[in-house]
Amino acid sequence: MTAQTIAFPIERRRPAAAQAAPESTPHSLTLPAPFRLRRGAVLPQVTLAYETWGELSPTRDNVVLLFTGLSPRAHARSSADDPSPGWWEEMIGPGNPIDTDRFLVVCFNQLGSCFGSTGPASVNPETGDRFGLTFPALTIEDIARAAKAGLSALGIDRLAAVVGPSMGGMAALAFALEFPQALDHLLLISSAHRCSPFAIAVHSLQREAIRTDPQWQGGAYAPEHPPVHGMRLARKMGMISYRSADEWQHRFGRERTERWGDAPFGLEFEVESYLEHHANKFVAAFDPNCYLYLSRAMDLFDAGEHGGSLALAAQRLRRLRIQVVGVHTDILFTLDQQQQLVDTLSASGAQASLVALDSIQGHDAFLVDMDRFAPVVADFFTGVPTARA
Amino acid sequence: MTAQTIAFPIERRRPAAAQAAPESTPHSLTLPAPFRLRRGAVLPQVTLAYETWGELSPTRDNVVLLFTGLSPRAHARSSADDPSPGWWEEMIGPGNPIDTDRFLVVCFNQLGSCFGSTGPASVNPETGDRFGLTFPALTIEDIARAAKAGLSALGIDRLAAVVGPSMGGMAALAFALEFPQALDHLLLISSAHRCSPFAIAVHSLQREAIRTDPQWQGGAYAPEHPPVHGMRLARKMGMISYRSADEWQHRFGRERTERWGDAPFGLEFEVESYLEHHANKFVAAFDPNCYLYLSRAMDLFDAGEHGGSLALAAQRLRRLRIQVVGVHTDILFTLDQQQQLVDTLSASGAQASLVALDSIQGHDAFLVDMDRFAPVVADFFTGVPTARA
Repeated sequence: MTAQTIAFPIERRRPAAAQAAPESTPHSLTLPAPFRLRRGAVLPQVTLAYETWGELSPTRDNVVLLFTGLSPRAHARSSADDPSPGWWEEMIGPGNPIDTDRFLVVCFNQLGSCFGSTGPASVNPETGDRFGLTFPALTIEDIARAAKAGLSALGIDRLAAVVGPSMGGMAALAFALEFPQALDHLLLISSAHRCSPFAIAVHSLQREAIRTDPQWQGGAYAPEHPPVHGMRLARKMGMISYRSADEWQHRFGRERTERWGDAPFGLEFEVESYLEHHANKFVAAFDPNCYLYLSRAMDLFDAGEHGGSLALAAQRLRRLRIQVVGVHTDILFTLDQQQQLVDTLSASGAQASLVALDSIQGHDAFLVDMDRFAPVVADFFTGVPTARA
Repeated sequence: MTAQTIAFPIERRRPAAAQAAPESTPHSLTLPAPFRLRRGAVLPQVTLAYETWGELSPTRDNVVLLFTGLSPRAHARSSADDPSPGWWEEMIGPGNPIDTDRFLVVCFNQLGSCFGSTGPASVNPETGDRFGLTFPALTIEDIARAAKAGLSALGIDRLAAVVGPSMGGMAALAFALEFPQALDHLLLISSAHRCSPFAIAVHSLQREAIRTDPQWQGGAYAPEHPPVHGMRLARKMGMISYRSADEWQHRFGRERTERWGDAPFGLEFEVESYLEHHANKFVAAFDPNCYLYLSRAMDLFDAGEHGGSLALAAQRLRRLRIQVVGVHTDILFTLDQQQQLVDTLSASGAQASLVALDSIQGHDAFLVDMDRFAPVVADFFTGVPTARA
């Protein structure tokens, strides 16, 4: 660290207009102005929870914005405030691929989520009730623009790089399309420029499982009585699309559980027990209405709407260096789609390339296959210059 | 037709012991003795609905037994009794790949189903109530053995060939393993010798969707109030595993329906509307408890249990000619599995081979891609000799 390095947390330097929440874990800020959504509605007040790792350089040239997948909170990496492991613990940190000795990493809990940011599960300050289904229609672009407004509130206008896996890759791409002058490097991981009909079908069924659970009550469930059956089904359907058949063949085969015969048509195979375990963790952790909004936002996103076609959208990104990373076994966001995106970006003049990884873990590989993902991410950031490097 | 040809319907020649139901469409028979299931329970009385096409040859050497997938009834082909198109209308009939000018084709509504055969939806004659969950645990071997008993009741002990697609391929394989001397030719289409953990996971979620619908009522729903939400979800999950992402990309892309905005998180994309349409048809047509039993039977089936390993099971089939047909885009029963089966059968000395088709329609291709499937099935039957041919 040099003497010129400005210390963090960055709240200390936030503009007066940003009404940051009291210091807490995670940190949060309130946008200084009402926030207009892409489909026209206005949220009078938007709070965004966020976390940061690393320090801002004197020239403010080292900020990395990280978008999350659908369900994670802003806690991507442990910190002094919260020493529990983050969802990308090994990817971020001193000496790690996203090296916090070089970069300041900022991650928001996305708009529409339920971990401290404004969304369907938060209280509408105008009514005193939870938004629920009165929350307006949400898009990926809204999530990207809320993050931009949050950065501005923190005094950050330029980014060394924007990164996102899965749904976060869509938000990162939307960010670049909305604010192409605000960044130089873009890293899209296991993501897509739009959902295929297969992905839409899976998402649609997940939403239907929640909506048809009577406990959903048309979105008006009490927080302590969420639609657990629907959420459990939705998560299990997610797992089927997030992992790969090959991985399960290797991990489980046809092994039986010890719970055989507990109940009619109960859990008999190990793969069923594995799904149940993950689903139960999720049900306790995520708000069903937020799930519906964020899932739908993914389906609605189409990068080609920025300009009228994917080729025209790509024109906006032609001065960027863009790395796309995908996995052969990913059935949700496929290599075919990622190849199409890279081809289109390259044709527009962007410095775009695709890395296709042989991970067996499917869409979720970016969370678990560090042996393959860490070197690719490290390479990308080696190519992101900063004055300090 | 020669003068020696015995006329049909075959009920006219059924043994006295077989208490056939009154003439109806479909035809049905009642087994002459109680039926013992693989897991020990005994059904005192088993009725099997069936249909036939073609005529029995004088030497009785031309019978083809056809097993169905999970949900179809015995109506594989139109007939004078029922002129509506069957589920394999173009595959069966005079001059068709399964040529009824040469063969007598017999198809049962499988044991455990709900179209005239004994199953969870039928009335237990001992109580006067529907079986529901009091129906004993069902296996694929039970389905195969019930069909064998049904054939015996019809006076048929030898088969020219046994054929089955999907779950019907499992039943056909089970039939061959249980009664290897009763047939010479076996055709397994888009099937597997056991479910992968991916297939088990999909099936398990389908069952969970039904079981967690409050209208299921622990299996005690009134027939006129079935768990429609759960059945609809189960069918849609099935469609996701039955078709292919490529097919949907070509058919639907991201086209929108005209029903946009009907309800919160309602149907907006064509692919969602397509799933809804098929699910609604299914909900009206199939009994939920039967679905649970048949789905579970698929998961439990493992050809390797016949002898202790797949290799030992294959020994039982070494005198047979076996054709296995699969599809590259089938994610439920994959070509990898089918290749493994053929390799093991070949190693045992059976005349086994695999045809891998390039259909885009995934697991369901055998129902819709006649251009590719019809020639393969026709070739197989050309190799099935009969005295008449």
